[in-house]
Amino acid sequence: MSVDDTTGPAPAGPFSPDDRAAVYRAIRLRRDVRSQFLPDPIAPELLMRLLQAAHDAPSVGLSQPWNFILLRDPAVRQRIHDAFERANTEAADKFPDRKALYSSLKLQGILQAPVNLCITCDRSRGGEHVLGRTHDRATDLYSTVCAVQNLWLAARAEGVGVGWVSIFRDDDLRSILRLPDHVVPVAYLCIGHVSELYEEPELQAKGWANRLPLQELVLEDSWDGPQASLSRNAAKTSA
Amino acid sequence: MSVDDTTGPAPAGPFSPDDRAAVYRAIRLRRDVRSQFLPDPIAPELLMRLLQAAHDAPSVGLSQPWNFILLRDPAVRQRIHDAFERANTEAADKFPDRKALYSSLKLQGILQAPVNLCITCDRSRGGEHVLGRTHDRATDLYSTVCAVQNLWLAARAEGVGVGWVSIFRDDDLRSILRLPDHVVPVAYLCIGHVSELYEEPELQAKGWANRLPLQELVLEDSWDGPQASLSRNAAKTSA
Repeated sequence: MSVDDTTGPAPAGPFSPDDRAAVYRAIRLRRDVRSQFLPDPIAPELLMRLLQAAHDAPSVGLSQPWNFILLRDPAVRQRIHDAFERANTEAADKFPDRKALYSSLKLQGILQAPVNLCITCDRSRGGEHVLGRTHDRATDLYSTVCAVQNLWLAARAEGVGVGWVSIFRDDDLRSILRLPDHVVPVAYLCIGHVSELYEEPELQAKGWANRLPLQELVLEDSWDGPQASLSRNAAKTSA
Repeated sequence: MSVDDTTGPAPAGPFSPDDRAAVYRAIRLRRDVRSQFLPDPIAPELLMRLLQAAHDAPSVGLSQPWNFILLRDPAVRQRIHDAFERANTEAADKFPDRKALYSSLKLQGILQAPVNLCITCDRSRGGEHVLGRTHDRATDLYSTVCAVQNLWLAARAEGVGVGWVSIFRDDDLRSILRLPDHVVPVAYLCIGHVSELYEEPELQAKGWANRLPLQELVLEDSWDGPQASLSRNAAKTSA
């Protein structure tokens, strides 16, 4: 057996119907969680599985630009919570016509969720030149988001809820987490077991926004090309 | 039954062990595919499932900023391929010490993959103010990446490979796809059936880069906090 035999592609194919359905179920039932966190601790091995799922994400040039900062100190958590409150007051002012509804929405579970995790992107990871990053400097940030989404879907399968909190002043988060300039706090996540979840996005259930019809979002060949009838398009694909 | 009963949270919990394993398997076995595409067409209903998985992604303020541009015209595909070649020549120059290895890597399957798809982010979607976007203007781009990763994992479960091509001059892609300034081409994806995949990241199999040990990437409470021993950390979480 040559070296190439050991490192080359190996047989791969579709999952069984049941396994495929499980993957789609995680995708369809994943929710952004703010209010449903149970106080039960996250077991060590479960946390490791979630972090490994994140670390299994694709990354530009295999640069793996992510770090995982686990927030354990209650004093740090309180500072994070205070930073959220400051920013959220500013954000609410952007919606003068919907202020009552905005204020009624719970947008974070920082103090309730047993685990808080900040996933960062180290923009210097991999050195000055990273394969695939030359023409789009944002690709390292995109890789980090892939890690977030992996963790989110794994969590759904584990019965664990995840909420992404983005309402912070950048300076506040950088200062509390002592981030150097080359590190971007991509996602601040609240994580904990849940026994119930919304069946539709919570912002839709509460009347803030609605799902768009997928069909309106699919275009053919260019931005000003025809809106695609998915079945017709798809038929052409298979022609 | 009140309105609240129909729109409130419903029971949710962990998946069965088999279903959980399926989700982790999609995450672990997903690969960035460049060379393994089969010519077989993607069936219409399969393409719809993949696009629906993308559309099921989380988005800041439920803004759903994504569009899906399906590249069908062979002439457009050829222009995309030429744009890749131009950019890749520039990119190769960034790695003077590894030029032979760089040049030996196949980095795209634009003309081989039966489906090419550009997932874009419309930065005007949802209007001037979007809930959760006020303090981090990149969150709409991040939402779009969540859609990419959803599609990528669903594809793995379907036995379909996905390759993300990021080696384009921004102007080239914008011009070919006729994108207005407020639309960002986040991910250009080559999509097709595969019968084999690398078992580790292809860039690792080919000696370009290596996986980092997860443990070195997990920190406690701040960027300059202690590197976390995962099991110890996790034990503290469950304390």
